[in-house]
Amino acid sequence: MTFKSYTKELTFKTKKRVEIIDITSKVEQAVEDSGIQEGMILVNPMHITASVMVQDHESGLWKDLQRVLSELVPYDESSETYKHHLSGEDNADSHIKRQLCGRSVTMAITNGKLHSGPWEAIQYFEFDGKRKKRVLIKIIGM
Amino acid sequence: MTFKSYTKELTFKTKKRVEIIDITSKVEQAVEDSGIQEGMILVNPMHITASVMVQDHESGLWKDLQRVLSELVPYDESSETYKHHLSGEDNADSHIKRQLCGRSVTMAITNGKLHSGPWEAIQYFEFDGKRKKRVLIKIIGM
Amino acid sequence: MTFKSYTKELTFKTKKRVEIIDITSKVEQAVEDSGIQEGMILVNPMHITASVMVQDHESGLWKDLQRVLSELVPYDESSETYKHHLSGEDNADSHIKRQLCGRSVTMAITNGKLHSGPWEAIQYFEFDGKRKKRVLIKIIGM
Repeated sequence: MTFKSYTKELTFKTKKRVEIIDITSKVEQAVEDSGIQEGMILVNPMHITASVMVQDHESGLWKDLQRVLSELVPYDESSETYKHHLSGEDNADSHIKRQLCGRSVTMAITNGKLHSGPWEAIQYFEFDGKRKKRVLIKIIGM
Repeated sequence: MTFKSYTKELTFKTKKRVEIIDITSKVEQAVEDSGIQEGMILVNPMHITASVMVQDHESGLWKDLQRVLSELVPYDESSETYKHHLSGEDNADSHIKRQLCGRSVTMAITNGKLHSGPWEAIQYFEFDGKRKKRVLIKIIGM
Repeated sequence: MTFKSYTKELTFKTKKRVEIIDITSKVEQAVEDSGIQEGMILVNPMHITASVMVQDHESGLWKDLQRVLSELVPYDESSETYKHHLSGEDNADSHIKRQLCGRSVTMAITNGKLHSGPWEAIQYFEFDGKRKKRVLIKIIGM
């Protein structure tokens, strides 16, 4: 078999400012569509106020993640708190939360499938939503 | 040379709830076994309450990391603090700590070896242990 | 086309203890030099007290990131606060900040260019500088 690559952009609109969306089935579909049997997959937001993460698909945990992050990095629109807001923005907390949670996920593909543990679900974690958003999927392998 | 891939799962039992285990030599062995000279390696836990990280191999720092994370995200089994515990779990703090520390490590392979700086050691950071655990190593390249 | 790889180390001297340096144009140059049209790129510090991140190129946000991280993980040279300092070091906070911000960035290459969103800038985030530093760029693909 020879080396090949596969590229797909997912698009969706997020409804809330902060929101978690499970995209596992869409990523699995991309792996199948790629035809790649052995390789690596990268899944990343094309934005700097969102994360793609691997976590439990459990709504209580999603609330806990949002609460803890809001305590560590509170939303505050003033430019005394966040100098980023001198540029006219109000989302410094979103950038910093995304930085703490990570940008992207890289996973293995083995025998044509995501090589994942039993609880590993792929999720898009939005910190500044209510807008159209894009997620990039890149797969390389053979 | 042609493109190839290599897959290995490490298994071990962690003894404490929170624990750091250096796996650098096992990862180096996998790189050698793969025969891959130029490429990338992914090392990730197959669990959602653990991280694989690159950090200093220094026991004082390991204590500091554990203390700071415990202050930022305290262990607390109540379901008033962590909604995840309404589902019967007691490890919301473990999930959140893993999220802050990151899931996996991607490194370069150059001339058949891990291409790393002098202090870069690969470590498994367990946040909810005392059980059998798995780490996935995937290498692609030529 | 056949599989190939490209390796480059960037070197520079950081002037302050904590500092953010935009390296996007250097990474773009490496992508062009590699000749790789479809693949993945890894950009990582070769140190354990620095991060490579994708964030906004905005000096107010850079101040906010530094302030929040310093509040979450304060600099403190005592070995009562940080056990790492019993080994003669004074940079435990730098290690922990790097761990929270992540180590490296993996991005897609599509049609010979970084496949990135409009605001994604690649930045080196130094937490213990005033020394010569190295960043590794590895690209694989075809």
